[in-house]
Amino acid sequence: MVGKGDLGLGDMDRRGGEWLRGGGPRSEIVISSRVRLARNLAGFPFLACANEDQKSEIVDRVKLPLAQLPLASSPYYVDVDDAAETLGSFLVERHLISRELQHGRGARGVAFGSDEAVSVMVNEEDHIRIQSIKTSLGLEEAWRTAVEIDRALESELDFAASATFGYLTACPTNVGTGLRASVMLHLPAMVQMKQIEKLFNAAHRTGLTVRGFYGEGTMASGDLYQISNQVTLAVTEEEILAGLEAILPTILDYERKCRDELLTARRVISVEDRCHRALALLRAARVLSSDEAMANLSAVRLGIVTGIVTGLDVEQVNELFVLTQPAHIQKMRGETIDPPARDAVRAAFVRENLGR
Amino acid sequence: MVGKGDLGLGDMDRRGGEWLRGGGPRSEIVISSRVRLARNLAGFPFLACANEDQKSEIVDRVKLPLAQLPLASSPYYVDVDDAAETLGSFLVERHLISRELQHGRGARGVAFGSDEAVSVMVNEEDHIRIQSIKTSLGLEEAWRTAVEIDRALESELDFAASATFGYLTACPTNVGTGLRASVMLHLPAMVQMKQIEKLFNAAHRTGLTVRGFYGEGTMASGDLYQISNQVTLAVTEEEILAGLEAILPTILDYERKCRDELLTARRVISVEDRCHRALALLRAARVLSSDEAMANLSAVRLGIVTGIVTGLDVEQVNELFVLTQPAHIQKMRGETIDPPARDAVRAAFVRENLGR
Repeated sequence: MVGKGDLGLGDMDRRGGEWLRGGGPRSEIVISSRVRLARNLAGFPFLACANEDQKSEIVDRVKLPLAQLPLASSPYYVDVDDAAETLGSFLVERHLISRELQHGRGARGVAFGSDEAVSVMVNEEDHIRIQSIKTSLGLEEAWRTAVEIDRALESELDFAASATFGYLTACPTNVGTGLRASVMLHLPAMVQMKQIEKLFNAAHRTGLTVRGFYGEGTMASGDLYQISNQVTLAVTEEEILAGLEAILPTILDYERKCRDELLTARRVISVEDRCHRALALLRAARVLSSDEAMANLSAVRLGIVTGIVTGLDVEQVNELFVLTQPAHIQKMRGETIDPPARDAVRAAFVRENLGR
Repeated sequence: MVGKGDLGLGDMDRRGGEWLRGGGPRSEIVISSRVRLARNLAGFPFLACANEDQKSEIVDRVKLPLAQLPLASSPYYVDVDDAAETLGSFLVERHLISRELQHGRGARGVAFGSDEAVSVMVNEEDHIRIQSIKTSLGLEEAWRTAVEIDRALESELDFAASATFGYLTACPTNVGTGLRASVMLHLPAMVQMKQIEKLFNAAHRTGLTVRGFYGEGTMASGDLYQISNQVTLAVTEEEILAGLEAILPTILDYERKCRDELLTARRVISVEDRCHRALALLRAARVLSSDEAMANLSAVRLGIVTGIVTGLDVEQVNELFVLTQPAHIQKMRGETIDPPARDAVRAAFVRENLGR
C-alpha cells in the first residue's frame, strides 16, 4: 500500500473510478449504486468518546487487515490526517471519502482499490465504513461486494454487536445492519419539466433521503440526485435494499416520461438547442467554472442518451462530472491555484476531452 | 424598374448591400458612412399639409427622374404604400428606408440601385430624401455621390429653396443644406470596458447625436452606434462633414485603447472566452433570437478584428447583422412566421453561414 501526502495516486486525476463507466442496466438514468456498511471495533469507545491514542490504535489495528483485502491489483491507503488539503478534497470529489472524514480530527484514513469499486474509511463517524460502488443499477452486486469485504475484515477483527440490536454504530440511525444503500440518478428531464419536487415527495413518503452529487447543499449540481435509505434498525439488509429497489422503477419511469415529453414535436427543438449549445460551450470556453461545467455536462449527457448528441459516450461525461471538480483541476496542475486560474485549466481540460 | 409588393428583389435576402462589405479605411471599427440630403419640390406643400392627391402627384413627378438616375445596373422602385408589411420591414432592416416611411400614409416609395449604395425615399418627412452609403470610413465619397444624385434630380425637378436659408425642408433642423451625415461604429470594447458613456458625452459636447443600429430604442444592439450631425442651418456642407470627421479620430482612438486594454494579459483570457463562446453558440444554436444573434455576432466581430477568431471575415458578420433581422428571416422563408419559428429559421441560417 502506498500514499502518504500527495504521492502515489498515479493518473487518477485523469480518469474516473469504475463506477463512472456506465453501460450497465438503466445507465441512461442511473449513474451508480452504492452500499455502505458501518462497523465498530469491540473494546474501543465510539469515536466521539475516543482520545487521540485510541484513534491511532484503531488505525494501527485495521491497517493490516485492510492491506490484505482483495481490493484490486494496487490497493491504496491514505492517512487522511496527514494528507494535504487538496488531496483530501480530491478523495471527496471521487466519492472515496466523506467530507466528515476529510475535516475530522485525529488518526484517520481510507483504503481503496485502484478501480475504486470499494473504499474503507477508518475513523469517520464509525471506526470502519465499508463502501462498495457499482456503475449503473447494481445494488445487489454492490451489497454482495460489501458483505465480502465485511466478512474478510470480521475474520481478522472483532466488531461491536448486540444480540438484540445487531451491529452497534455511533449514530442510532445506523444501528442494526449498519447498512446504507443509495443510487445516484441523472434526472435532467424531471428538472427541466419542473417535476423534481415529485421525487422529494416520493422519497419522503417512503422514508428515503435525497441529496445532491456531493451530499447536501450540492442539490441540482448536474441534475444529479442521490437517493438513499434512512432507517436500518429493526429491518434486514434485504428489506433495506428491497425498499430502495421498490421505489426506483417509479422514479425511473417518471424521468423517462419527462424525457419523452421533452422529445415531443412541440418541445424537441428547445431541447436540441440546449444540448447542442451546452456541448458547444464546453468545447469553446476558455474560462469555465465548476458549476457551469456541471450544468452543461448534464445537458450533454441528456443529449447523448436521447440521441441528440452523437460521437460522445456517457462515460466521458460521467467522468467529467468528477474530473472537473476543483481539487482534481489542482491535482492535474500539481499545485494549489486560485479559482480564476482553475477555471482556465478546467476549460482547457474539458476542451481537450470533448474536442472533436 | 421593378418591384410592387414582394416581387423582384432577387436574392437580396441572402446578401448584404455594398456598404456591409468592410475592408476599407478603419473598417475594424467603422461599419459604414452615410450622407443624406433632404429636398422638396417647389410648388407643393410640405407633406404634413399635403393631401392624398398631392402626394400621388409628387410620386408621379419624381418617378421618371428616379428611373433615369445612374443608380446601378438594375435599379428598383418600391411603392411602399402598396408593399406588404414584411417587405416594408425588410427595407428598413437594410437601411434603405426609415421606419417613418414604412409607417407613413399615402403615396410614397423608394428607389435604389442593386448595390444599395444609394436610395432615394419619396414622401418621407420631405418629398425627397437622397441617401448615399459607403462601407467603412468614406464620408467625402458618400457626400460626392449624394451630390451627383442631387444634381441629376435637380436638372429635372425644381427644388424649394430660399436665398436666405438655402434648401427648405419640412423640419427646421434640416433647413439650409438639408444634409445629414452619419457613421456606423462597432464599439464592443468601449461597451465591455463600460466607457460607452464617454461616447455620449463627446457627442453631446460637439452637437452630434448617437443612435443604435436601427435608430433610437435599438441602442447597444450588436454594440453598433450611429453618430450623426444635428445642425444644418447656417453651416456649409463642408462644415458638417468636417464636424463629424473632427470628432471621429478621438472616438476611434478610444475604442482602440479599450481593445488594447482588453488584450492585456490580465484580461485577454476572458475576451477569448467571450469570443469563442459566441462563435460556438452561433454555430450550435437551434433557436436564436435576433437580440442574441446581434450580441454574439458583435463578440465574434471583435474576435475577428483582434485575431482571436480565425477563418471568418468581417463581411460575413456585417452581413449577418442585417440578414438575421426578423423580416429578412421571413423573406427567406417566403412567408410570415411567428417569432418561435423565426428563431429556428434564424438559427439554421446562421449555422449554415458560419459553419466550418
